[in-house]
Amino acid sequence: MRPSGRNLSEMRSISIETGVMRHAEGSCLIRCGNTHVLCTASVENNPPRFLKGTGLGWVTAEYGMLPRATNTRNRREAAQGKQSGRTQEIQRLIGRSLRAGIDRVALGERQITIDCDVIQADGGTRCASITGGWVALRLAVNKLLAAGVLNSDPILDHVAAVSCGIYAGQPVLDLDYAEDSEAGTDGNFVLTGSGKLIEVQMSAEGATFSRDEMNQLLDLADAGMSELVAAQKAVLS
Amino acid sequence: MRPSGRNLSEMRSISIETGVMRHAEGSCLIRCGNTHVLCTASVENNPPRFLKGTGLGWVTAEYGMLPRATNTRNRREAAQGKQSGRTQEIQRLIGRSLRAGIDRVALGERQITIDCDVIQADGGTRCASITGGWVALRLAVNKLLAAGVLNSDPILDHVAAVSCGIYAGQPVLDLDYAEDSEAGTDGNFVLTGSGKLIEVQMSAEGATFSRDEMNQLLDLADAGMSELVAAQKAVLS
Amino acid sequence: MRPSGRNLSEMRSISIETGVMRHAEGSCLIRCGNTHVLCTASVENNPPRFLKGTGLGWVTAEYGMLPRATNTRNRREAAQGKQSGRTQEIQRLIGRSLRAGIDRVALGERQITIDCDVIQADGGTRCASITGGWVALRLAVNKLLAAGVLNSDPILDHVAAVSCGIYAGQPVLDLDYAEDSEAGTDGNFVLTGSGKLIEVQMSAEGATFSRDEMNQLLDLADAGMSELVAAQKAVLS
Amino acid sequence: MRPSGRNLSEMRSISIETGVMRHAEGSCLIRCGNTHVLCTASVENNPPRFLKGTGLGWVTAEYGMLPRATNTRNRREAAQGKQSGRTQEIQRLIGRSLRAGIDRVALGERQITIDCDVIQADGGTRCASITGGWVALRLAVNKLLAAGVLNSDPILDHVAAVSCGIYAGQPVLDLDYAEDSEAGTDGNFVLTGSGKLIEVQMSAEGATFSRDEMNQLLDLADAGMSELVAAQKAVLS
Amino acid sequence: MRPSGRNLSEMRSISIETGVMRHAEGSCLIRCGNTHVLCTASVENNPPRFLKGTGLGWVTAEYGMLPRATNTRNRREAAQGKQSGRTQEIQRLIGRSLRAGIDRVALGERQITIDCDVIQADGGTRCASITGGWVALRLAVNKLLAAGVLNSDPILDHVAAVSCGIYAGQPVLDLDYAEDSEAGTDGNFVLTGSGKLIEVQMSAEGATFSRDEMNQLLDLADAGMSELVAAQKAVLS
Amino acid sequence: MRPSGRNLSEMRSISIETGVMRHAEGSCLIRCGNTHVLCTASVENNPPRFLKGTGLGWVTAEYGMLPRATNTRNRREAAQGKQSGRTQEIQRLIGRSLRAGIDRVALGERQITIDCDVIQADGGTRCASITGGWVALRLAVNKLLAAGVLNSDPILDHVAAVSCGIYAGQPVLDLDYAEDSEAGTDGNFVLTGSGKLIEVQMSAEGATFSRDEMNQLLDLADAGMSELVAAQKAVLS
Repeated sequence: MRPSGRNLSEMRSISIETGVMRHAEGSCLIRCGNTHVLCTASVENNPPRFLKGTGLGWVTAEYGMLPRATNTRNRREAAQGKQSGRTQEIQRLIGRSLRAGIDRVALGERQITIDCDVIQADGGTRCASITGGWVALRLAVNKLLAAGVLNSDPILDHVAAVSCGIYAGQPVLDLDYAEDSEAGTDGNFVLTGSGKLIEVQMSAEGATFSRDEMNQLLDLADAGMSELVAAQKAVLS
Repeated sequence: MRPSGRNLSEMRSISIETGVMRHAEGSCLIRCGNTHVLCTASVENNPPRFLKGTGLGWVTAEYGMLPRATNTRNRREAAQGKQSGRTQEIQRLIGRSLRAGIDRVALGERQITIDCDVIQADGGTRCASITGGWVALRLAVNKLLAAGVLNSDPILDHVAAVSCGIYAGQPVLDLDYAEDSEAGTDGNFVLTGSGKLIEVQMSAEGATFSRDEMNQLLDLADAGMSELVAAQKAVLS
Repeated sequence: MRPSGRNLSEMRSISIETGVMRHAEGSCLIRCGNTHVLCTASVENNPPRFLKGTGLGWVTAEYGMLPRATNTRNRREAAQGKQSGRTQEIQRLIGRSLRAGIDRVALGERQITIDCDVIQADGGTRCASITGGWVALRLAVNKLLAAGVLNSDPILDHVAAVSCGIYAGQPVLDLDYAEDSEAGTDGNFVLTGSGKLIEVQMSAEGATFSRDEMNQLLDLADAGMSELVAAQKAVLS
Repeated sequence: MRPSGRNLSEMRSISIETGVMRHAEGSCLIRCGNTHVLCTASVENNPPRFLKGTGLGWVTAEYGMLPRATNTRNRREAAQGKQSGRTQEIQRLIGRSLRAGIDRVALGERQITIDCDVIQADGGTRCASITGGWVALRLAVNKLLAAGVLNSDPILDHVAAVSCGIYAGQPVLDLDYAEDSEAGTDGNFVLTGSGKLIEVQMSAEGATFSRDEMNQLLDLADAGMSELVAAQKAVLS
Repeated sequence: MRPSGRNLSEMRSISIETGVMRHAEGSCLIRCGNTHVLCTASVENNPPRFLKGTGLGWVTAEYGMLPRATNTRNRREAAQGKQSGRTQEIQRLIGRSLRAGIDRVALGERQITIDCDVIQADGGTRCASITGGWVALRLAVNKLLAAGVLNSDPILDHVAAVSCGIYAGQPVLDLDYAEDSEAGTDGNFVLTGSGKLIEVQMSAEGATFSRDEMNQLLDLADAGMSELVAAQKAVLS
Repeated sequence: MRPSGRNLSEMRSISIETGVMRHAEGSCLIRCGNTHVLCTASVENNPPRFLKGTGLGWVTAEYGMLPRATNTRNRREAAQGKQSGRTQEIQRLIGRSLRAGIDRVALGERQITIDCDVIQADGGTRCASITGGWVALRLAVNKLLAAGVLNSDPILDHVAAVSCGIYAGQPVLDLDYAEDSEAGTDGNFVLTGSGKLIEVQMSAEGATFSRDEMNQLLDLADAGMSELVAAQKAVLS
C-alpha cells in the first residue's frame, strides 16, 4: 500500500557515517532512505552574548538545503537574500531539541553550532537533521572531554526524531516525500533515548485528527526511536 | 499556586469585541486576560498566483506585535528589515489552523488574509490570534454570504486554540507570561468546535515530558476549548 | 460643502484615552474622528551612542500603520523588509517636533522612544501621532519626576499638530481622508501650547499656492491648536 | 557676521552648466557656492504602472550623494543596502516639486526621471537639486518638443528652491553648511517663476519660531528666487 | 618544499564520482585532494527572460560553501542575507567559463543552471567547481540528447580549470590552502580540452609578477589540464 | 576599422584633473575619452578591525556608477538595496591593485578608502578607476608626508590599468564601449610604473583565445601603460 512497498511500521534503512568533514569538531552524513543530511558540530569557546557571565552554555542549529536536493530546483536562499519561514522554523526546532538533551551548566560558557545541510531530500529532513545533529554534537563533546576541556559529560541522553502520519487512512511510520505530500495529518516526534518526549508537532493541512490517531502515531514513533537510537549507538561504539 | 491565583484548570477571562475596525470585512479585538490581539479579515477576489485556475480559495495570516506590547520595548520588525523566525513560525501556524476549518472549494478563487496584531502581550498571543482570527474570518465570510458572493458556507467548524503547560510540576491551563517563562514544557493546542485536533505543538525547553503529562495537557485543552467556542458563539449570535 | 458636513473651521471630535497600555511608561489612544493612533512612550536610561558623555537626552519616534487601518489592505512593512519613504519621513517629523518642546539638558542622558501605531486611518495620522505622542511623553516624564529620577521638568510646553488645506477652493481645518485625497494644497502645522511654530510643511501636488492662502491655513491651524491643547490638558488633569 | 562674509540677503554665486552628460536627454551641473549637484533627466516612453491607460505622465526624482561629498566620508548607501530616511525624504520632495510645474496631460503617458547626485556638499543640496533638476527637465522636454514627440509644452513655469534660516538671531538667505548646522530654525522654499509657492518646509530643531520670522524668511526666499530664475533663464537662452 | 610534499608540477589526486544526486539531470562530486565540491546541472526548458525569442540558450552557475567546509566556521550566507562579493565573483566566473564551451544556438531556448556547493575546502574551490561543473553539464546534455530533446550536441569541448602560483619563490601547480594563503602571486586558468584559453585571472596581493613568471604558470596550467581532461574523460566513458 | 577611427594601438586621449573635490584628502577627475571617473581618497587614522595591533595599514576601494552614466538609465544600486556582483568584483579589483603598489608597514595603522564614481561610461571604467584612484591615493599620501604624519613614503611605484581585446579579429588597445560589447576576448591589465604585472584578467565570452593572442594583448598593454604613467606624472609634477 505504501509507495515504497514498506510495511506500515517499517522505517527506511538508516545509515550514519561519521568523520566525513575534515575540519569540524564532529560530523556525520546521515541517510534515511533517500534523505541525506550532512551534520557538523562547530565549537566556540565563547557563549553567545546573552549568556556571558551566566556559566551556561548554548547549543544552536542552522539548516539549509542544496538547491537541487529536491525534484525540481529550489532557489538558493543566499541568492534570495533571506531564509524562508520554513527554514527558520526547522532550525529553531533542531536547536531546541538538542538543547533538551544537554546539561548547560556542565557545558559551561561555550557554544556548539550544529549545521544541518540537506544534500538530498525525500521527506523527513528535519527529523534526520535532529538524529544526525545529535551524533555530530556527541562527537564534538567527546573531543572536548578527551582534551580535558570538559570534566563531566554535559550530554544527558540520546536525542532523535521521526515523522509519522495518516497516509491513505492508515497510520504509517517514517514518511517519505510521496507520502508526506499526500498525508492530511502528520507529525514530527522528538524523543530521548529513554523514551521521554521533547517535542511533538502534529498538524493537519486541510483536515483534522483525533486523539486516537494521535496515540497511534505516538506508538509508531516510539517504535521508530529504538531503531534510531540503535543506529546512533552502533556508529559511536 | 499560580501567580495569578487562578485554579489549575481556570482560563483567564475572555472578551471578544467585534466590528472594531471600520474598514475591514471582519474584525475583532480579543482579550484573554492581559493579552489583547486585534484581528482583521481582508477579502481579495483574486486567489494567490499558485491557485489560479484551480477553483480553490486560500486563507493566510500575518502576525505582528506592537513594540511596546511587552514589558520592555521590542525592536520594530519593519525597522529591522525582517520578520523574526518566531513571527514567521506563528503566522504560518495561524494560517494552517484556519485553513483546516474551511472548505476551500466552497470559498472559491479568492483569498482572505487574517492580520493578527498584538496590542498587549501577556502570554498566549498565538492562541488568542487563532481564536480571534477565526471570528474575523467568520464575519468576513458572513458578509460574502449576505452579499450573495458565496452561495454556500465554506466554514466547516469553529477553530480556536489554547496553551497549557507544566508549571511548578502541575499541569495548568492557559499560561500567562509569568507561567510561560518558567514552564519547562508547554504546548499549543488548536481544536475545532467539535473537539477534533488541528495542531498540537508541545515542546520542552531544557526538559522532557511523558505521554501521561501530554494527555493531561490535552484534557485541559479540551476543557478550555469549550469556553473559547462559547465565547465565539456568544459574540456572533 | 465638506464631505463630513463640518464647517470650514470645524475640527473632528477629539478623544484622548490614557493608560491604555499596561507596560509602557506613558500611553494613550488618540481619536481624531475616525483616525485612531496608539501612542506609547518607552524610557531607556541610556542615551543613544552619539550622545554618550554629552549630558543631553534624546526623544525619538517610530511610526507604523496596521495593514488594515486603511480602506484597502496595505502590505505589512515588516513583511516587505523595509519602511517606506513616507513612514520614515513621518517618524522623523514626529521626533523632531517632540524634541522642540523639551529641554534636553534637563532630560539628562536618557532616551524616550515614542511609538505611534495607527490603528485606523482617516487622514491626519501624522498630526494625531504628534498630539497623542506628546501626551505619552508627558505621562512618562511625570513618572520620572514622581520617582525622583528627574528633578526638574524637561518639558517646555505642549506640542500638537493639525493639518489644513485648500479643499474645493476653500481653506479648511483638519482634513479627513476624503478631503486630503482631493486637496491640491495642504499643510501640517506643529505648534506649541503658547502658539509658537515648530514645523510648517505645506505642499502642493500638481498645484501652487499663494502667501495669502498660506496665511489663511496658518490662522485655521492656530484655531485648531487651542482645541488640541485643551484636549491634552483635560485628559492630564 | 555670516561665516562666509555674505550680507544677510546675499545668495552664493550660482552657476549652471548644461549638456554635461553625453547620454542623458537633459543634464546640468549646478553650483551654488561649494554645493555642486549633477542633474540628469531620463525619458522613458512608458508611464509607471499605476498610470497605464490614464493619459497622464509622471516626473519622479532620485537623489544621491557621493561618499566624499562631505567633510568626512559618508558610508555609501548602495553598500549599506538601503537609502536613508533623509535621502528618501529629499527625493520625494524633488519629485513633488517638479510635478507641480508640469501639465501631466500634456506630457502624456511617459515618465521623466530626474537624478540629482551631489558631487560636493556645502548646505542646500535639496534646493540646488530642485533648481538644477528643473533645468535638466526643461532640456529633456525641449528635446521631445523638437523631435515632435510632444506637440504642446507640458512645462507650466520655472521651479526653483532656496533655503533660509535664523542664524545668530538674524534671518539669512541661502544657508551654507556652517550656518545650517547652527541654525535652530530653517526652511526650504520651493517657488514657481511667477512667485507662487509649491512647498514650504520650515522646521525648528530644539527651538520654535514665530509667524513674523516665518514671513521674513519667505521675503528672503522671494528675493532669492529672482536670482535663481534669472540663472535658469540665462543658461537656457 | 611544498607543505604537502608534492613536486612543483604535481597535481593533487583527482576523483570524480558521477550520479551522486538522485534528482539532478547531471551531477558529480569532484575531489581535488581535500577540496570536495558537489556539482549539479538543472535543466529548465525556458530561457531567462532576456533571451526569449532569440533562439539562444543559457548556462549559468551558482556557488556556495557549507559553513564548516573550512577550518573555522564561516557564517552562512543565507543567514547573513546576502552573498559575499567573493561568492558572486566566483559564480560569474564559473558561468562565463562554461558558456565559452557551448554552442548556444544548438542548446536552443533553455537554461542549464550549474550549482557548485563546496562540501570541504582546501584551496582551488573555483577551479574544482569549473572542472566538476562541466561534467555535470555534460551529463545533463547527454540526457537531453538521449531523449531527443536536442538533435545536435551543443558542447564544443571540455572545459576545466586549475590554479598555479609562486610559492616560496617557485612556480607550483594546483595550490592547496596552505600554499594559496602564502602565495603573493597566483592565478586561475580556465582552458578547453584542446588547450585554448577561456579565462586567465592572475593577481598579486601585495606583490607583482613578471611576464616570465606568468608564462611559467601558464606552462604548468597546460600540464595540469591534461590530467583534468583525462579525469573527465575517464569518468564519462 | 575601429568605430572611433583610432589605430589598433592608439589610446583614447587621457586627461587627469586633480583637486576637484574640496573635502577629500586626494581627488581627481580622470577622463579616458568619454569615460569619466571621479576618484577620491579618504584617510582614516584607524585601520580596519582585522588589522588592529598588526602595525599594517590598508587601502580599499568602493565603486559606483551614476544612473545615467550610460546610454540607457541604470537602476540606482542604493534604491535596489544592493551592489551588483559586477560592482563588487570591480571594487575588489581596484583595492587589490592599489594595495600591490603600497608598503603597508610604512603606511602604518591607518586606512585609505578610494571612491571611484563613474560620471560617464564608455568602456574601461575599472581601468580608469585604477589609474585615477592611484592619483588620488598619491595625493593623499603626499598630504600625510607633508604633515609629518608619515615619515617615509609607503608608495612603491605607479599603478595603472588598461584594457585590450580582440576586436574584429585584431588585437586593439584601450577598448571603448562599442568595441567592448563586440569583443569575444578582452582583458584588463594592471601594471606598475616599472612594467611589472599586478593583475591580468583575460576572459572570453562565448569564445576562446590562444597564448599568442594573449601575448599580443600584453604587448599592447605595455605600450598603453607608458602613456598612462606619463599622464600620472604630468599631473603630479
